[in-house]
Amino acid sequence: MYDHYHAVIMAGGSGTRLWPLSRCKHPKHLLSLLESTSLFQSTVARLAGAFPMERVWVVTTATQAADLQQQAPAIPAERYLPEPAPRGTAAVVGLAAIALRHTDPEAVMAVLPSDHYIRHVALFHRLLKAAYLLAQDGFLVTLGITPTYPATGYGYIQRGEALGVYNDLKAYRVLRFREKPDQATARQMLAEGGHAWNSGMFVWRVDAILAEIRRQMPGLAAALDEIDAVWDTPQREAALARVWPALRAETIDYGVMEGAREVAVIPAQGLGWNDIGSWEALFDILGTDADGNILRGGEHLSIDAQNNLVFVEGRQRAKLVAVLGVENVVVVDTEDALLVCSRDQSQRVKEIVQALKAREMDEYL
Amino acid sequence: MYDHYHAVIMAGGSGTRLWPLSRCKHPKHLLSLLESTSLFQSTVARLAGAFPMERVWVVTTATQAADLQQQAPAIPAERYLPEPAPRGTAAVVGLAAIALRHTDPEAVMAVLPSDHYIRHVALFHRLLKAAYLLAQDGFLVTLGITPTYPATGYGYIQRGEALGVYNDLKAYRVLRFREKPDQATARQMLAEGGHAWNSGMFVWRVDAILAEIRRQMPGLAAALDEIDAVWDTPQREAALARVWPALRAETIDYGVMEGAREVAVIPAQGLGWNDIGSWEALFDILGTDADGNILRGGEHLSIDAQNNLVFVEGRQRAKLVAVLGVENVVVVDTEDALLVCSRDQSQRVKEIVQALKAREMDEYL
Repeated sequence: MYDHYHAVIMAGGSGTRLWPLSRCKHPKHLLSLLESTSLFQSTVARLAGAFPMERVWVVTTATQAADLQQQAPAIPAERYLPEPAPRGTAAVVGLAAIALRHTDPEAVMAVLPSDHYIRHVALFHRLLKAAYLLAQDGFLVTLGITPTYPATGYGYIQRGEALGVYNDLKAYRVLRFREKPDQATARQMLAEGGHAWNSGMFVWRVDAILAEIRRQMPGLAAALDEIDAVWDTPQREAALARVWPALRAETIDYGVMEGAREVAVIPAQGLGWNDIGSWEALFDILGTDADGNILRGGEHLSIDAQNNLVFVEGRQRAKLVAVLGVENVVVVDTEDALLVCSRDQSQRVKEIVQALKAREMDEYL
Repeated sequence: MYDHYHAVIMAGGSGTRLWPLSRCKHPKHLLSLLESTSLFQSTVARLAGAFPMERVWVVTTATQAADLQQQAPAIPAERYLPEPAPRGTAAVVGLAAIALRHTDPEAVMAVLPSDHYIRHVALFHRLLKAAYLLAQDGFLVTLGITPTYPATGYGYIQRGEALGVYNDLKAYRVLRFREKPDQATARQMLAEGGHAWNSGMFVWRVDAILAEIRRQMPGLAAALDEIDAVWDTPQREAALARVWPALRAETIDYGVMEGAREVAVIPAQGLGWNDIGSWEALFDILGTDADGNILRGGEHLSIDAQNNLVFVEGRQRAKLVAVLGVENVVVVDTEDALLVCSRDQSQRVKEIVQALKAREMDEYL
């Protein structure tokens, strides 16, 4: 795309919301949920034509780095940035910004989650280019998604004054960020207009984001300075190991974006974006059969069963799942754990993970 | 109990209605559903104090005989009567009657399924004694169960004139047998009174039942004659192998009882009997937790989940089943098959077995 443009894939999370398929040791972005490739591989593939692979970076944890490199060997090994321990997306962004600045002081970075789904790749590329142009003007740019229903699972961005048209897409100053709303508030925002879902995808100049981190998160800035000072020396890893564990975990949204000065949003319509935040989300992405069922993996038999999601882990090829007289249920079967959940409660799967932690049933996490 | 009294346990069925736990090679009566012992072992144990083990007979199939002998070694090996192939309960009764007559021409036989549950054993023994006395008068005696609700899963027996009191229990002539009714008919019979559930347990003199088989099922009688003629010779097995496969499968109810001349019923109240004819039946037998759930085998986690049955096959000790926001569902997980079924449809599980047969998915049968 543009010479100073880099993509930073955030691939350190564990994704409890797709338990029992996503696990500590097998996080969501490594799952092959939708295609034969993992969500991470699809995220990388989606960048082809927009970023050369030497300008694609992957921030991950030390434990996941080897798996990721194996999945995406086209990305140069030195582009993988392992964190000693996960400390939230603000730290991820800061670390990547330091790395990029050493490569290219004028770098613009697109921050991209590794476990989202985007149907329309051409529009995604148009959006990335528009955001690059806007970022050149010093803005911290958020990619917004024009809402199609009153979702309660996403944060919202309320737009302010128009900033003009970039690569045929309209950009706006951000008036405010709003947390995940209740149903009534979501309906109201949808009716009102002027709100976009916060996709968690951001574009900014490295110097702009580092300046905001310094202003709003001095602790993180100081830690980054320590690492920055020894970046090109053999002490880099030791510095990381020393300062990283002491960081307070914080998201880039709360830590920086909500209080940042020059924030813009480019709302995208028809991107076919989904963060796959719950099992329910698969109904928006995958095709259903004539009975409204999604049946994946293993063998299936359904009698008087409608609108169910039945997912059998790939390793269990010979497992048969028979569903009889049941509607709107999610069934996910893995070797050592089975989830049976009503569709309208599937966003509560994280409560199961919390309960397992509380009971110290770590083998199922 | 009485010197001429023998128990005949019918242990040849496969019990498709508890699929996927009950399978061709692991039939219902071999399951340890309720206790640490199998239903067959519980059936044998229930006879202690009523029948010495040398007067307990087991009719089964050749493929199951070894498993059963291992489970109940107290029964002498020569009391196991293997059929070359299952040909319905009429053939089972006929074969046992031949065997008993060779041991004791005055034998009275109690025919007992191997896969039923009976809570009150003392009352069961009283009932067996009463039936023995009535059978001595030449009656084919059916043990009836006084209905507690308008069940549609059982056949009914309408009683006629009183025959007197036997061992403190009232006996009646049978007016007629009625097939499994619809809900309205079941309600009507319950309101009307005078109807008992057909438990499938029978008591009669060997000569009486053989006379009725001869009168109503001449084909079976002829086959039994061939076997009878060589019973005490080395040709017995060859005769069985020759005549048995040609028999038409028939139940003792349809083949003999409905058209028999001298049929009596002793209705039992408070026996705590259950034929475990579906997963739903376990709610009547097993205790539930405070949320109305039955959780057996494996590990369990339930959040906002009520009145469910979750059963994990014993071999899968480490399997966790998490149920979230689901009510009145039956979940049965085995190594190679998983059932998810609404409770009120659980009597339709046999349709799954039929569908698997039709699709030649024999490995799951």
